[in-house]
Amino acid sequence: MRKIIVIGIGAGDPEQMTLQAVAALNRTDVFLILDKGEVKQELAGVRREILDRYAGDRAYRVVFGEDPERDRTAGGYTEAVDDWRRRRADVCERLITDNLPDGATGAFLVWGDPSLFDSTLAILADLADRGLEFEREVVPGISCVAALTARHGIALNRVGAPVQITTGRRLAEQWPPGADDVVVMLDAHNAFTRYADQENVDIYYGAYLGMPDEILISGPLPSVAGRIAAERAEARARKGWIMDTYLLRRH
Amino acid sequence: MRKIIVIGIGAGDPEQMTLQAVAALNRTDVFLILDKGEVKQELAGVRREILDRYAGDRAYRVVFGEDPERDRTAGGYTEAVDDWRRRRADVCERLITDNLPDGATGAFLVWGDPSLFDSTLAILADLADRGLEFEREVVPGISCVAALTARHGIALNRVGAPVQITTGRRLAEQWPPGADDVVVMLDAHNAFTRYADQENVDIYYGAYLGMPDEILISGPLPSVAGRIAAERAEARARKGWIMDTYLLRRH
Repeated sequence: MRKIIVIGIGAGDPEQMTLQAVAALNRTDVFLILDKGEVKQELAGVRREILDRYAGDRAYRVVFGEDPERDRTAGGYTEAVDDWRRRRADVCERLITDNLPDGATGAFLVWGDPSLFDSTLAILADLADRGLEFEREVVPGISCVAALTARHGIALNRVGAPVQITTGRRLAEQWPPGADDVVVMLDAHNAFTRYADQENVDIYYGAYLGMPDEILISGPLPSVAGRIAAERAEARARKGWIMDTYLLRRH
Repeated sequence: MRKIIVIGIGAGDPEQMTLQAVAALNRTDVFLILDKGEVKQELAGVRREILDRYAGDRAYRVVFGEDPERDRTAGGYTEAVDDWRRRRADVCERLITDNLPDGATGAFLVWGDPSLFDSTLAILADLADRGLEFEREVVPGISCVAALTARHGIALNRVGAPVQITTGRRLAEQWPPGADDVVVMLDAHNAFTRYADQENVDIYYGAYLGMPDEILISGPLPSVAGRIAAERAEARARKGWIMDTYLLRRH
């Protein structure tokens, strides 16, 4: 039986690797990488640095599959993501069957924690449904949410109170019911600006967390929303990509 | 100026320490420990193992303060926690002023991630408000939520869908509005049993995650709720303490 490890590698700082993740790297024969093309060269560089530093002075292979583009013009969001995921599963299936014989161990490296807004586990579930045989192991990682709160020095929740983790798309529709503390992921369109007139909302924003170009901005949303929108637009234009998240806290 | 580092040490498996956390241990002069008494000797043992393994072969001190009991008979939950937190802050203030001179670095070790349902950061904020002077740093850790999903091999969220993190107390009142995926913390009274007649809810339960006595149970809630209640009662009675969490997933 082949084995596949899904390894959380932290939010961008190689020092966020756990000792368990380092040990998992050292049990891996083949690293399976979905290549997102040229724009995220900096992320590829951090990934390479992680392998160079921690994967050990021994023989391993790194193989690449081309990450398919998501059709952002398609109608339904869920359908578009499902279709994208199917095409990614095709690429991953080939990566695995071409490179991972029985008895070998492969690994996918996932930014942050593999359980949070990442599709690798769902792809592997799809491949298992298709009949691909493999043993699976997951190594948790420092999520961008934990990195965000640590860098701001704040707790995620207030005493006995709930926290909602949601998407920019949903926040743009409405403030999530039943939660005054809301973490927002995958927000490409500054959904927070919809609430920029609410004096009782604070925002804790972070981009490129733990990386050299880290951006941290916090404060009352009406005071800082414009600055966040401007800085993220500038950074994304300059670097070609952005990885960011934020917490909204309503008093 | 004295420095205080709040270090997330993972959910119970010493291998969940990050390299950043190991480095922070090695910068620490005095470890500040709130002692919860005899029942959690096993946790104290893991903490000691973490220091022995990772804090380096050098001089450091470990000092203890007595963790005050929370008044569980008091009326309001928030008030009781606030009062408890105030008394913990008193203990922490003495720990710091007695043991941490200017220029020294102290550290609090926190299970899981310091941002999630832990009071250390709030206590430090209280102490800063009281006028205690210190520099603060937070090192994120693997949360019990990340440990739970990794051990079950599942994603926390579904495609584009929100996740709510809440307490057993709140779940006992109602299913959180606006989320079909709900992580429950601090549930001392089997709040999940309230939903045990709901055929469309799965549960992913974990106790002592990453530790030798780990319990993992998953399945349709009506099928496994009774077994979870029985196993957690047995384990808590036998060991004298329990650290557990679960995800409810409604289809």
